Amino acid sequence: MERLKEEVGRRIKTLQAVLRDEGVEAALLVQSADLIYYTGTCQNAHLYIPADGTPVFMVRRDIGQARATAALDCVVPLKSYREIPAIVSDHGLPAPEVLGLEFDVLPVSQYMQYQKYFPGARFRDVSGFIRRQRAVKSKSEVEILAESGRLLDEMLSLVPGVVGVGKAEVEMSGVLEGEARRLGHQGLVRFRGMNYDFFMGHFLTGPSGAEPSCFEGPVSGPGLDPTFAFGAGRRRLEAGDPVYVDYGMAHRGYITDATRVFVVGSLSGRLERAHAVALEIQAAVFERIKPGALPSALYHLALEMARQAGLEQYFQGWRQPVRFIGHGVGLELNELPVIAPGVEDPLAAGMVFALEPKFVFPGEGAVGIENTVVVTENGVKRLTNFPDEVCRISSPA
Amino acid sequence: MERLKEEVGRRIKTLQAVLRDEGVEAALLVQSADLIYYTGTCQNAHLYIPADGTPVFMVRRDIGQARATAALDCVVPLKSYREIPAIVSDHGLPAPEVLGLEFDVLPVSQYMQYQKYFPGARFRDVSGFIRRQRAVKSKSEVEILAESGRLLDEMLSLVPGVVGVGKAEVEMSGVLEGEARRLGHQGLVRFRGMNYDFFMGHFLTGPSGAEPSCFEGPVSGPGLDPTFAFGAGRRRLEAGDPVYVDYGMAHRGYITDATRVFVVGSLSGRLERAHAVALEIQAAVFERIKPGALPSALYHLALEMARQAGLEQYFQGWRQPVRFIGHGVGLELNELPVIAPGVEDPLAAGMVFALEPKFVFPGEGAVGIENTVVVTENGVKRLTNFPDEVCRISSPA
Repeated sequence: MERLKEEVGRRIKTLQAVLRDEGVEAALLVQSADLIYYTGTCQNAHLYIPADGTPVFMVRRDIGQARATAALDCVVPLKSYREIPAIVSDHGLPAPEVLGLEFDVLPVSQYMQYQKYFPGARFRDVSGFIRRQRAVKSKSEVEILAESGRLLDEMLSLVPGVVGVGKAEVEMSGVLEGEARRLGHQGLVRFRGMNYDFFMGHFLTGPSGAEPSCFEGPVSGPGLDPTFAFGAGRRRLEAGDPVYVDYGMAHRGYITDATRVFVVGSLSGRLERAHAVALEIQAAVFERIKPGALPSALYHLALEMARQAGLEQYFQGWRQPVRFIGHGVGLELNELPVIAPGVEDPLAAGMVFALEPKFVFPGEGAVGIENTVVVTENGVKRLTNFPDEVCRISSPA
Repeated sequence: MERLKEEVGRRIKTLQAVLRDEGVEAALLVQSADLIYYTGTCQNAHLYIPADGTPVFMVRRDIGQARATAALDCVVPLKSYREIPAIVSDHGLPAPEVLGLEFDVLPVSQYMQYQKYFPGARFRDVSGFIRRQRAVKSKSEVEILAESGRLLDEMLSLVPGVVGVGKAEVEMSGVLEGEARRLGHQGLVRFRGMNYDFFMGHFLTGPSGAEPSCFEGPVSGPGLDPTFAFGAGRRRLEAGDPVYVDYGMAHRGYITDATRVFVVGSLSGRLERAHAVALEIQAAVFERIKPGALPSALYHLALEMARQAGLEQYFQGWRQPVRFIGHGVGLELNELPVIAPGVEDPLAAGMVFALEPKFVFPGEGAVGIENTVVVTENGVKRLTNFPDEVCRISSPA
């Protein structure tokens, strides 16, 4: 707890410096991942961080657990939102003229309540500051992410025991997801924003890997119904199918993300070759990852290599390919940085992201690679290490 | 598809009548459960429903899947939010002076974009209209919910095969969750609102059932870490523990919710008795459920019975008990009606909710019952039917 208190204290100081620079007198935070980051615990609560002074953690539920687990000194009960201004004032903090909120996730109805309870305040969006701060992980965050990555490697090592010709995707995925839970997966994979329609990951066979849907990734899967077209469907595995396995592992709050391709028998030459190109792209991008590298340049390098290989039309999807090859991970699956065209904010040491060059062939399926990495002073370090090559399963379960 | 088209057509007509009554010229909907309800499919999309005229379904992703699965005639691609007013105008619809949005879920930043793109409009919250409409299920929705309930019964019947003395909660829960997937559980259990921190359900042994956390239910569980104190933890089952199993089953988008208590050996007399009281409360409430019944009256009946039994202090939680005994279910786990004090909107035929009288004993665990029911013209019909009594497991796995 002492270590967490120091760490949380540093995080709050960093945000306070930004608030002062930006002329924001305080931030009032409510979103769970942000609360975890600035308190160390997940509560139904409001965290009031003044630009100067001691943060006040106002907890609706559960006050006892909050007092036991929050890495903050000032933890007080909160019965109703309308009490917030009085609690702030009771702690010797002035009524803010400029109050920061998380505009990217805060619902309008809640925002309108704050407008009522802080009638003198102007409101500013502080979610950008928070997301940029959270993009750069501390040493202890990277340690937890490395543990998460080791668990994800272990989960991937169990796939050959789960795969069997004739088995339905959803049956195989269920067993693998159960194993992930046994390893310590918390279940929930947090995703920032409305319409959080996500579940653990994708276990797809053959053409299922090329089913388009609303999900903003290179691959999505058919799911079981159009009301949630995501992940495993009912298709049964055939020999020679690419088995596309892409999961997030959430451990102590922190998510790593990896994709591997398995096959009973062997892949078609075209898919085999596309997978090899994805590995070449990964190697070339890894070589250029370092503090100062531009995400846009990494994206264009990858796209150019796909083009040179004659595979551009299958790169990152086929009908509506996504325009990114990587996404930050941490407490949420969609953190910064995004490795995409137009992103000119340079990489910094401590940033953690999943790099995922992939090829999707309609009617055939998806291949490619995904690994979670951390940017170091000297380059890049992998946090997921299961072998990248297509994994041939000779004696299926 | 013809049946779905008729149904979706009726739903839209019902909303349009409310919009006209309320002086709202159009609703612009974006939240996934609402989109499923009014289109039959889940897309990254905007649905523009004029108070008079034909709805326009503007789809960012995936337009092909949307055209194949949406129960609407007018499905058009959308590249950027800024195109929305032009698309609306191209379809012969006037620029709205009063535009309805889902204030309870819409993030502030997105709201501000609509303010920019519809500079002449006033905005109104239509989420209340939508939630009240969605509370009353159609015949075909009840059919899907009944299928969902049968799958949940089947899932519960598998618990005895999963339970074993010495096994960790998270291991048992993982196996059960995997079986649920095999049965056809979509994985995701939708929950309306920010901080969607939920995962499938609770599999808790002994004192874990009494661990308080931020989750707004009678029971929550310790989870694996304070960053997600929800559901199964690492505790290992002992003989005589109450094994508290509370899961949502999500099938074709629709969720049913049930709780059962299992035990290897037998429960303490106090827990056994409390479970019996929960069953008596359920029976008494079931007897009073019918169109016109008041949720507040059902809540007070239940509370009074808990009081008479001398168990009030353990009813619906111990440190911060929740003030409800039931919650609507459907596409989301937290729909209307809520069976709670102060709720004076009468029940109507077609409403579906989970009724969950429970008792939580610190240091010992949780017992009680939960079943999903539909209000009928004559009373109530259960959608979950696994036996309510404590299930004794004589020969554990």
